[in-house]
Amino acid sequence: MEQPDAGAVQSTRLWGGRFEGSPSVEMDRLNRSLPVDHRLWREDIEGSLAWATALGRAEVLTEDEASTLREGLEQVAERLRSFDSARWHAAADEDIHTLVERLLREQVGAVAGRLHTGRSRNDQVATDTRLWALRALDRIDSLVRDLQAALLSQAEPNVATVMPSYTHLQRAQPIAAAHWLLSHAWALSRDRERIAGTRERVGTLPLGSGAIAGCPFPIDREFLRDELGFLAVTQNSIDAVGDRDWVAEILFVASTLGVHLSRLAEDVILFASAEFGFVRLADTYSTGSSLMPQKRNPDAMELARGKAGRFIGGLVGTLALLKGLPTGYNKDLQEDKVALFDAVDELETLLPAVAGSISTMTFDVDRCAAAVDPAMLATDLADFLVREGIPFREAHERIGRLVRAAEELGCSLSELPRDRFIEISKEFADANLDGLFDPLQSLEARSAPGGTAGVSVRAQMEALKHLL
Amino acid sequence: MEQPDAGAVQSTRLWGGRFEGSPSVEMDRLNRSLPVDHRLWREDIEGSLAWATALGRAEVLTEDEASTLREGLEQVAERLRSFDSARWHAAADEDIHTLVERLLREQVGAVAGRLHTGRSRNDQVATDTRLWALRALDRIDSLVRDLQAALLSQAEPNVATVMPSYTHLQRAQPIAAAHWLLSHAWALSRDRERIAGTRERVGTLPLGSGAIAGCPFPIDREFLRDELGFLAVTQNSIDAVGDRDWVAEILFVASTLGVHLSRLAEDVILFASAEFGFVRLADTYSTGSSLMPQKRNPDAMELARGKAGRFIGGLVGTLALLKGLPTGYNKDLQEDKVALFDAVDELETLLPAVAGSISTMTFDVDRCAAAVDPAMLATDLADFLVREGIPFREAHERIGRLVRAAEELGCSLSELPRDRFIEISKEFADANLDGLFDPLQSLEARSAPGGTAGVSVRAQMEALKHLL
Amino acid sequence: MEQPDAGAVQSTRLWGGRFEGSPSVEMDRLNRSLPVDHRLWREDIEGSLAWATALGRAEVLTEDEASTLREGLEQVAERLRSFDSARWHAAADEDIHTLVERLLREQVGAVAGRLHTGRSRNDQVATDTRLWALRALDRIDSLVRDLQAALLSQAEPNVATVMPSYTHLQRAQPIAAAHWLLSHAWALSRDRERIAGTRERVGTLPLGSGAIAGCPFPIDREFLRDELGFLAVTQNSIDAVGDRDWVAEILFVASTLGVHLSRLAEDVILFASAEFGFVRLADTYSTGSSLMPQKRNPDAMELARGKAGRFIGGLVGTLALLKGLPTGYNKDLQEDKVALFDAVDELETLLPAVAGSISTMTFDVDRCAAAVDPAMLATDLADFLVREGIPFREAHERIGRLVRAAEELGCSLSELPRDRFIEISKEFADANLDGLFDPLQSLEARSAPGGTAGVSVRAQMEALKHLL
Amino acid sequence: MEQPDAGAVQSTRLWGGRFEGSPSVEMDRLNRSLPVDHRLWREDIEGSLAWATALGRAEVLTEDEASTLREGLEQVAERLRSFDSARWHAAADEDIHTLVERLLREQVGAVAGRLHTGRSRNDQVATDTRLWALRALDRIDSLVRDLQAALLSQAEPNVATVMPSYTHLQRAQPIAAAHWLLSHAWALSRDRERIAGTRERVGTLPLGSGAIAGCPFPIDREFLRDELGFLAVTQNSIDAVGDRDWVAEILFVASTLGVHLSRLAEDVILFASAEFGFVRLADTYSTGSSLMPQKRNPDAMELARGKAGRFIGGLVGTLALLKGLPTGYNKDLQEDKVALFDAVDELETLLPAVAGSISTMTFDVDRCAAAVDPAMLATDLADFLVREGIPFREAHERIGRLVRAAEELGCSLSELPRDRFIEISKEFADANLDGLFDPLQSLEARSAPGGTAGVSVRAQMEALKHLL
Repeated sequence: MEQPDAGAVQSTRLWGGRFEGSPSVEMDRLNRSLPVDHRLWREDIEGSLAWATALGRAEVLTEDEASTLREGLEQVAERLRSFDSARWHAAADEDIHTLVERLLREQVGAVAGRLHTGRSRNDQVATDTRLWALRALDRIDSLVRDLQAALLSQAEPNVATVMPSYTHLQRAQPIAAAHWLLSHAWALSRDRERIAGTRERVGTLPLGSGAIAGCPFPIDREFLRDELGFLAVTQNSIDAVGDRDWVAEILFVASTLGVHLSRLAEDVILFASAEFGFVRLADTYSTGSSLMPQKRNPDAMELARGKAGRFIGGLVGTLALLKGLPTGYNKDLQEDKVALFDAVDELETLLPAVAGSISTMTFDVDRCAAAVDPAMLATDLADFLVREGIPFREAHERIGRLVRAAEELGCSLSELPRDRFIEISKEFADANLDGLFDPLQSLEARSAPGGTAGVSVRAQMEALKHLL
Repeated sequence: MEQPDAGAVQSTRLWGGRFEGSPSVEMDRLNRSLPVDHRLWREDIEGSLAWATALGRAEVLTEDEASTLREGLEQVAERLRSFDSARWHAAADEDIHTLVERLLREQVGAVAGRLHTGRSRNDQVATDTRLWALRALDRIDSLVRDLQAALLSQAEPNVATVMPSYTHLQRAQPIAAAHWLLSHAWALSRDRERIAGTRERVGTLPLGSGAIAGCPFPIDREFLRDELGFLAVTQNSIDAVGDRDWVAEILFVASTLGVHLSRLAEDVILFASAEFGFVRLADTYSTGSSLMPQKRNPDAMELARGKAGRFIGGLVGTLALLKGLPTGYNKDLQEDKVALFDAVDELETLLPAVAGSISTMTFDVDRCAAAVDPAMLATDLADFLVREGIPFREAHERIGRLVRAAEELGCSLSELPRDRFIEISKEFADANLDGLFDPLQSLEARSAPGGTAGVSVRAQMEALKHLL
Repeated sequence: MEQPDAGAVQSTRLWGGRFEGSPSVEMDRLNRSLPVDHRLWREDIEGSLAWATALGRAEVLTEDEASTLREGLEQVAERLRSFDSARWHAAADEDIHTLVERLLREQVGAVAGRLHTGRSRNDQVATDTRLWALRALDRIDSLVRDLQAALLSQAEPNVATVMPSYTHLQRAQPIAAAHWLLSHAWALSRDRERIAGTRERVGTLPLGSGAIAGCPFPIDREFLRDELGFLAVTQNSIDAVGDRDWVAEILFVASTLGVHLSRLAEDVILFASAEFGFVRLADTYSTGSSLMPQKRNPDAMELARGKAGRFIGGLVGTLALLKGLPTGYNKDLQEDKVALFDAVDELETLLPAVAGSISTMTFDVDRCAAAVDPAMLATDLADFLVREGIPFREAHERIGRLVRAAEELGCSLSELPRDRFIEISKEFADANLDGLFDPLQSLEARSAPGGTAGVSVRAQMEALKHLL
Repeated sequence: MEQPDAGAVQSTRLWGGRFEGSPSVEMDRLNRSLPVDHRLWREDIEGSLAWATALGRAEVLTEDEASTLREGLEQVAERLRSFDSARWHAAADEDIHTLVERLLREQVGAVAGRLHTGRSRNDQVATDTRLWALRALDRIDSLVRDLQAALLSQAEPNVATVMPSYTHLQRAQPIAAAHWLLSHAWALSRDRERIAGTRERVGTLPLGSGAIAGCPFPIDREFLRDELGFLAVTQNSIDAVGDRDWVAEILFVASTLGVHLSRLAEDVILFASAEFGFVRLADTYSTGSSLMPQKRNPDAMELARGKAGRFIGGLVGTLALLKGLPTGYNKDLQEDKVALFDAVDELETLLPAVAGSISTMTFDVDRCAAAVDPAMLATDLADFLVREGIPFREAHERIGRLVRAAEELGCSLSELPRDRFIEISKEFADANLDGLFDPLQSLEARSAPGGTAGVSVRAQMEALKHLL
């Protein structure tokens, strides 16, 4: 948002008695936070409504004064609801708190000046932002759940779809496509756990801490907590106004969530390439090239991968912001909201697009199956020898030699003559080699909890459904 | 740790059947992780002990084989216990798992080759590292608690020690020194909450996930979980071997803890300066200068401030490491341990030094009191007018004019003649100005929960004691 | 900027022949970059003007076609010049390139479709953004120079203003206030060096690289380079479209510049505190408190300190974005502009406010001088002994004992009786102790290049003036 | 490195005259930097040799004293050359400067105490580390050059090897394999430019700045500069001891270099996968799996990809370390060396392994060619229409429809009957379709500078050779 002409518009300030003259244009431009914090207007009014009531209950205000303030605040809310970006742009107030108090004065006159009793912008902005953040966390949680649901919906028909798993991006062992999809859903469930844990620390109410030393009026902070839907009240006023752990924690949650989305995205980008060809993204989630007519690009996935960087940047910026700050509130903290708002906005844009990409993509079951080459059953061959009594390390060595033999002959492992198998390990004499090279048998063998066997995959899906 | 001469010492490997020749010297130097992961030897053996038992219970091994392996592993542990850095340095094995298996073979012969059945280094290293991390978290938690105790022990005699609080590093309102100390103790209590939350996610057992697709032998993963002291088992084998969220989460915990230590350190550095002079660090926690004989430097505090940067770096490096990784285990993950070990080591060095600095520092009560200049009571004067019925905003404006008048006269606010007070606000006619300028009265007024009044500070101390 | 209603407004695309249907709403919302890249409209048109000319010169277009396109582009520029934020908001095109081509078609009809010949958005957006960045670097350089000038203007009258220097935030040795001011100016000169170095790499022209493989028409890239004011052309088309080093490098320049501003800010915040009291910020660069009438806060300096975190965040986010990207252009790169624009905008807001704060602040010369306590001359006493033939290490030890003696007696070092001096070192018998305790003598002794003596400080000022 | 038993070994200190008692064990453990900075021993002695000479030339020392010190320092160097890690481990000195001075005293007696005249550890450690860093930069530059040479050696035989280029990881246009290899070599040339630029700022000599205020003896700093091989001397003593820009700048160089290696690594990992199959890594640069006998893992490439995160972490940690530090030297700066040493060590391990991987890998020319499917010639078809007079935008649309038609028919673009071509664009009636679908023709068309045509690729190789 560009800056208003500070020469023309006199900005309102909640201080100044002791100062001669106004801030310079350069200072005002740097200092005004309204272009960022105007988004907190709803929370600012809610906090003020509760504060007016609490001042009334503490008999700092008369019941009439408190009612007048509350009615005035409701009218201010009504006015702000209709603000478009041009109106916000034109407002030259220092911040959202100043704007709200100015409008309140326009509504109710001098009694507006009673609202800020015992309160400071230091505890006020921390309260507003935490309130905003609590709601943002709930929205993000819900969007993550939607993405889990999309993964689950793709998993259900693909419990028996065989595809390669990869380690080091080299084909490893056959797995069910559902198992791959669920691996991402489980990662997301940790994000939701972290959201829940973070929510508890965000939901601690600083209101009633004053500027730094506490509130000198007999305010009922538990009433405020209850009124505003917080879980606890802060226990030390200095800590209350200077703590921004919870911002960093939300940004950490965004970063690990972003990392999970980037890894899912990387997989889908790979699997949608001509070379892998395991999945195809819907036309509605693909884009083209301005130059190359044939292109079919997974832009949503690439942006998902890229935005992880942005979240990490926001986290680091905030940690570096906080590092080494002296005691109490410092203006540096005003910077906390930029990264917070950005991360939430981006996640709210990104998560639905990722969920949509996943739920509309289609598997090419044949290409998945074709990619399971016989060498991927090498571990199963070794396990067969183990069951025949060969120590695993020896079995591994023997199968390694078989793999090398096949490579030297330029054939696949399953195409080696049985003689070569027997030559390397006599236990293969009576083995059912066809069975050993059957990927589905390999899948079904991995039935321990967490494995890729149907029974395990279905158990995973059941468990996940309970978390949705 | 420097690298052994790879030309001279043949490194052991758990693979190679399919390869011609050995890795190049350059490759071996890059790839060998033993110089880092040798610290996991205890956990590697514990994991192997449990695995041997589980293989026995699953009848993959005979009871004899399982016993032999367990006894052999105990002997290997005995040997490793005596390894000094020269011995570790001389070992040319690829990693700790390879070293342990080699030594086991030296102890028990070919049966050692049966231990790795159904297991991969992918689930093994994740298990080892999580086990190490669980214990590290417990040690860190205990050291943070010690620091809280040090802060509390300083707070107790300083409930009535008056000092300035600061916002924007400008003197704000009088507070109790105890209130300042406790503000840092409360921040640390959030670190301990985060440690507890993180512990749950670290304590999820990947063992039994194989390389990626699960374990093809009927292993009882709940038995393993119980045996190794984990809280749950992982639910998807792909996720289990590729998940390093928990490393990032520990590094986030270290980063916010580091930020807290840096803020405490910044305060102590300021307060120990000649200009503030509120505290004096003990000789045992001060250092001198090689050039300037008079210097008395708060090095421990400065290092505490600086190390926050290091923790943030470790966190970022790990998040960037994970971002965009494709499915499954990738060798990139080997890098996870460097930042993890470094953060834990540094915290274990740093926390006792910070706790020692705090518990041995002394307050200069007179300089603390002298710094509470009368202008810091300005809010109390405004609050007085509020109680006399003036709206706060108007009261603030009036006192602002008083402050400016005092500045123009070059006197302190309390030295202004009563006439000037009355001139600006007639309510001051009968006011007890001496009382209004008494810092202790100001403190006691802030008795709402979280405030600096004695009653609130003592309540905080009680609450904190329950957390120690 | 909020998103337009994608259901209502059909977005224009430069591709789509091969697709059925439009992108989904979720996809469009994520994918559209116009809300960010519309700022490149001037550069996009300049690049297109040059491209049209180059296509004409290559006889890919007739001279008439090229002229028509150029005139049309000028008309588009005219229209865009009048766009306000509402108009930009209403435009639903995918990006600025698409918007410009659409408007061009509205101006000149189907011939507009000839402009994109041999060009891709991949080389186009890289060209636009580099062009924007070159100009941004020049603006930043000029603002840094202004700040150096402000520091120099404060240094000039303060060559003989004595104040303490600090190491470990403990008083170290007396210095000239000018020396302190210049220390920050010299740090800024390194930022300008880095800007100059970065400028060379930013100023390399990618246009003519096509989507990735190069341009199949005989385009004269040197002509384009000259026309657009670049310094060189890129040498490999794959690298040209995928390289974003220069974005990271600008963000690194912003980060170190930000770090310098944060250190200057920290100093000013400290020196403007009641405890130091060395400087006073002008009213026009100070702010007050909504609660505490007496407050006088250095907000601009605190924001300068805080914004360093933001720049670091932008840098990290960009490096993490780039890490591990596969060959060629990837959509992830669209994210590059957010951090770039943000850093430049913030620096353009921040630098004038810092320069204004510095040029309007005043020194309290008396408090500066009063803070130079006699113990700060301890090194000079040791140096005196050195000149008398005592090895420095021994001299240091002796003065250390004097300092301790003074502390134990509770007097200042200069108040110790001469007997104590002689007792500790007989060389003091005939010493001019008053001279040794004269801060100005201490300053003048440090006349080696870079020292705080008048001659050195004036030489620094001369050298700096040549850089402005 | 573990800590010595501080209770048993008395650490040496260069200060202490004013202190009662020794640092506590906790403090000593935190504060001692010898375990890190002992690596600077060579540079510390070189700096001291030059300093002794300079003190002699300034007549602060007699020629005899200067000679004695120099000879003593040479003997100390001799002793330190033989230190193994056990010896370093046993040394309990505070830092390398203290250790060297202690050993010097052992060699030459009390005259050793004259060496530190006019010098501080603040300017000394900055000098040592810059000297170390200059040499490290030269080594890194040479290793980067080796990697460029490896890429060039692979490019030479592959100028006519056709393979797909990718954007969005979707096949884009045919390119020469050499063009892909060179794209990475050009990125590395920017790293070398940055190394050269950084070298200039690293090579500025702080020695002669004292602790902070300058040197009070008539030292010839230009002599020192020349003696130690620096390029310039610092211009302000405060800046000289507190500046660590150059550490951050080296870490930025490492980070962008790391990002380049990570992108090269990602490409090789992809191209070495079974799905792409374009290259095969040598056995000497491949590793296997402890569980899966068939695996062939590109570990070196994965570690290259992962270590980019580590470099970014080191950079961020250092920037966060510096952010907001107050004026002068602060102990926080001791942390600068950890990230610096780590980045250099890692690059020295990583670069040879990457160069070795590249120079020993082999291309599967057939699979490269087979991956160039006819749809990748779509842009060439559009360009054909452009040459026939169709506006590019219209040509793009028409070919898009052809692509869709081929997809719907399930055939490749080149398999569509000529009728369909003509139907969509009559210009195809006389077209040489075989020629249009010939990848080599497509390559050769892109002969503008930077393109993939043979002439351009050979020009790139010539230009690069001049940079080696």
